[in-house]
Amino acid sequence: MVAKMPTLRVALAQLNLTVGDLEANGLRIAEAIVHAKAWRADLVVVPELAVTGYPPEDLLLKPAFVQANLQALARLPALTQGLTALVGFVDRDRQGRLFNAAAVLAGGRHVATYHKQRLPNYGVFDEPRYFTPGASPLVLSLQGVRVGLTICEDLWQEAPARVVAAAGCRLLVNLSASPYHAGKLAARQALCALRAKTHRLAVAYCNLVGGQDELVFDGASLILEASGRLVARGAQFHEDLVLADLELPAAPGRRREASVRVGLVSCPRAPLRPIRRQALEPLREIYEALVVGTRDYVRKNGFETVVLGLSGGIDSSLTACLAVDALGREHVVGVVMPSRFSSRQTQGDARRLARALGIRCEELSIEPWFTAALQTLQRLFAGRPADVTEQNLQARIRGTLLMALSNKFGWLVLTTGNKSEMATGYCTLYGDMAGGFAVIKDVPKTLVYQLARWRNRQGAPGPIPETVFRRPPTAELAPNQTDRDALPPYEALDPILKAYVEEDRSLWEILRRNRFNPKTVRGVIQMVDRSEYKRRQGPPGVKITPKAFGKDRRMPITNRYRQS
Amino acid sequence: MVAKMPTLRVALAQLNLTVGDLEANGLRIAEAIVHAKAWRADLVVVPELAVTGYPPEDLLLKPAFVQANLQALARLPALTQGLTALVGFVDRDRQGRLFNAAAVLAGGRHVATYHKQRLPNYGVFDEPRYFTPGASPLVLSLQGVRVGLTICEDLWQEAPARVVAAAGCRLLVNLSASPYHAGKLAARQALCALRAKTHRLAVAYCNLVGGQDELVFDGASLILEASGRLVARGAQFHEDLVLADLELPAAPGRRREASVRVGLVSCPRAPLRPIRRQALEPLREIYEALVVGTRDYVRKNGFETVVLGLSGGIDSSLTACLAVDALGREHVVGVVMPSRFSSRQTQGDARRLARALGIRCEELSIEPWFTAALQTLQRLFAGRPADVTEQNLQARIRGTLLMALSNKFGWLVLTTGNKSEMATGYCTLYGDMAGGFAVIKDVPKTLVYQLARWRNRQGAPGPIPETVFRRPPTAELAPNQTDRDALPPYEALDPILKAYVEEDRSLWEILRRNRFNPKTVRGVIQMVDRSEYKRRQGPPGVKITPKAFGKDRRMPITNRYRQS
Repeated sequence: MVAKMPTLRVALAQLNLTVGDLEANGLRIAEAIVHAKAWRADLVVVPELAVTGYPPEDLLLKPAFVQANLQALARLPALTQGLTALVGFVDRDRQGRLFNAAAVLAGGRHVATYHKQRLPNYGVFDEPRYFTPGASPLVLSLQGVRVGLTICEDLWQEAPARVVAAAGCRLLVNLSASPYHAGKLAARQALCALRAKTHRLAVAYCNLVGGQDELVFDGASLILEASGRLVARGAQFHEDLVLADLELPAAPGRRREASVRVGLVSCPRAPLRPIRRQALEPLREIYEALVVGTRDYVRKNGFETVVLGLSGGIDSSLTACLAVDALGREHVVGVVMPSRFSSRQTQGDARRLARALGIRCEELSIEPWFTAALQTLQRLFAGRPADVTEQNLQARIRGTLLMALSNKFGWLVLTTGNKSEMATGYCTLYGDMAGGFAVIKDVPKTLVYQLARWRNRQGAPGPIPETVFRRPPTAELAPNQTDRDALPPYEALDPILKAYVEEDRSLWEILRRNRFNPKTVRGVIQMVDRSEYKRRQGPPGVKITPKAFGKDRRMPITNRYRQS
Repeated sequence: MVAKMPTLRVALAQLNLTVGDLEANGLRIAEAIVHAKAWRADLVVVPELAVTGYPPEDLLLKPAFVQANLQALARLPALTQGLTALVGFVDRDRQGRLFNAAAVLAGGRHVATYHKQRLPNYGVFDEPRYFTPGASPLVLSLQGVRVGLTICEDLWQEAPARVVAAAGCRLLVNLSASPYHAGKLAARQALCALRAKTHRLAVAYCNLVGGQDELVFDGASLILEASGRLVARGAQFHEDLVLADLELPAAPGRRREASVRVGLVSCPRAPLRPIRRQALEPLREIYEALVVGTRDYVRKNGFETVVLGLSGGIDSSLTACLAVDALGREHVVGVVMPSRFSSRQTQGDARRLARALGIRCEELSIEPWFTAALQTLQRLFAGRPADVTEQNLQARIRGTLLMALSNKFGWLVLTTGNKSEMATGYCTLYGDMAGGFAVIKDVPKTLVYQLARWRNRQGAPGPIPETVFRRPPTAELAPNQTDRDALPPYEALDPILKAYVEEDRSLWEILRRNRFNPKTVRGVIQMVDRSEYKRRQGPPGVKITPKAFGKDRRMPITNRYRQS
């Protein structure tokens, strides 16, 4: 006869925390502990660096900040009578070295501390800039079950899971702050399943939620049994308490297959039915990331209302929809700013969109302003043909106008440029790039259309007029201008950009893999290389691809590397 | 009788290279090798990552770039008949791992490779993002003398020098790319002397020259004998070939004190008198850093001429002097852009400065433009008092005007804001912050005055009118405005900023060390914290302090950490 196995009730509290808000983060963690206790959980887990928010960046170089984080943590052990809490914080040793750490709080005390062993130093991550890697694993015994601790990157490398499995662990816990990009959840879930199956242990993976500057953390915390089967999954992009009862073999004893029977709980707890939230469909997932990233940037920076220019084009139309979905229509102001080059059709579409969304819409012609600007420059420009100067001038007048509204009314300006424009520099610095947050700066133009279509399908009729989809894209800064005057068709441009920007492929690799015109590819690469200076001065925006512009891609401005 | 010791003639070629310009960098290195041969040198050293330029940043993630760097290196061994060359490049192993490396080229072949062991990951440095640390030292034998190789950070840590000394080395060579800040040369020289004396070996330290985005490399390569005595020093901020004959004990043999007798050379070489360039006085050194940083940014990015607004204030006056000294007066255009708030005095001073510098000066009133802008906004702003909105509007009109000149004539816009303004956010995004390069963005206001005084002393009479020094600083964006309306006096502000920004001190530490008003300090800290979003969108500028804004200080924008 086999002895009855202990059942652990695990609660993963995926919280939306704010970098630097130590007091509020501490309170949110306290709430989560109390909440988990009400559910009679044995173990409650909060995300990586929950006390400080993630990533705290160079705040970590301020000793007073680290000290304040330790003080915030010190208030939490008192709440842990009757359960164990794993809380991400910044630890500091006597030599002043910092560690990305998880505190084990139990029975009213801070009983142990785990130090993250693998520190990521790629993409948006800079952890070795601050932290010393931990030197050893930490294994807990909960009701006789061995539980191994890991933090984020520890799971993405092979060794840490192997080591705790060899130490007899039947449950691997991971505290994460794993930023979103499209498709990341599937990769994360496959990874957890691989670790579970390879090492025969259950996995409880708790991820952060919410926006922080360019990053969005998508939550979707996971609990898997040792077979790799998914037991529970938290909501994407929203706070959630993910619960499951895991029946796990106790140690010491004969090594047995760890079998997780969900729903079987030990007396006197009521049975639990773990929730497996449906994963969002791909377009909805991206849309939601943009909504949450925008909402959190605006709110966490103390703004209520945003303002954006409405051109009647697809980019500003999608951005307006996202803003309304993020903040509510009463917190979004659209401004139509026609010039001599604006068509009646685009202005009409801009107004129709605003009406359909129910947002306040102002109309301010830039013509008198543009005329005054041209007159000021007339003497110096005499005899020279109109060129991109006059186009940029219009964009900059619009940017200045929106910033004036921002200053006067305390509104945050949203910019509306997409990734294809940011990549090629088909945008005006201090013009359409002027603003606090660039909602769709990581969304390629072809995906802008798909997201806009998706949004329009969510209610009939959709807010974006059909003509916006059908009209060839135009900046309307010169007579009869379309984007095709300067760029290849977006259907060709976007795959080239993906290969060059996101995958770091060379000109020749791109040519080998596709049937693009070599001149086209070379032209695109040159545009990307030459517009680094613009991107450097652009506002932040939501990362949704594996490589966004910003901390993700650190290119020199002064750079004479040219391919072929 | 003691055997005659071998004499090594060492040549340090401190070169001004350009990131990504593999072909041109290769040619510059080839020239240095040929030049050193003409001097009959035994050993020629070029800076760290000379082939790629430093820092190449995410270019390193492009396999084609690394490959091209290897191809550029492969052309150099053929030139090394009769001498040994140490050349910084990016090495790649079979697994695709990258190394910050030094190639040993001798007798026409690439005979050995050293991999940097200590990779800096603080301040502006991100090397572990790209490189794998080297696992072992490399010791060369040159005419029987053991020579140990190190690269930059290897020297700043203790172990690498100790290890090669223990291996019998009597000469330590270091290939560096060490960015400038005020006072760095003295620190570097003290470090070299410490390593020399501690480990009884001569030190030959070759540093990069020139500007790369926010960094300036100051050269000032050093040769010290084992006693720590300085034998030779290269020019600061300029290319130079630093030569010395080092008489060093050969190995194996009894361990003897390495004695460097300068000027004693072996036949048939003519005697050599090593040059010890005078170190620049502190203000000239900073001024020179700003000049070189500006010149290289402008030229390496393909511009000839710069344009800047002249307000009659000290910041634009100093920036104009720097631009003229960097590029020549024929490549600098000043623009006076008066508004209703500009005084006759400031406009007069701006014109006098331009005349004294001999630069082209244009005058364009922004009044009609400003009036048109106010009229456009009139309806929406009705009933609201004038505030910072109208001030920013003027600054943005000026920014737009300068950018229009930039677009039409291909001039790069220089901005004129100082570090005190950047820190406190006392500047207008897309206004006075609009431009390609922010020459004095890392110069605190009090230092701006000192540098301006210093520049005026270089020729009588100095170009900056005396009234510019005497007038209380003002933005002239509102009636009777002075900086004191918004900021503490600069003599108080600058030390607070240094403590908070450069030294990461807390409110309480600052109060303990100084006799500042707590309200003042707290107000300053809040201004710094709240203007991160502006700095993120500002142009690059020359780093001259131990911690500049930019890659040096990576603060989150969304950040609710507040002290007290």
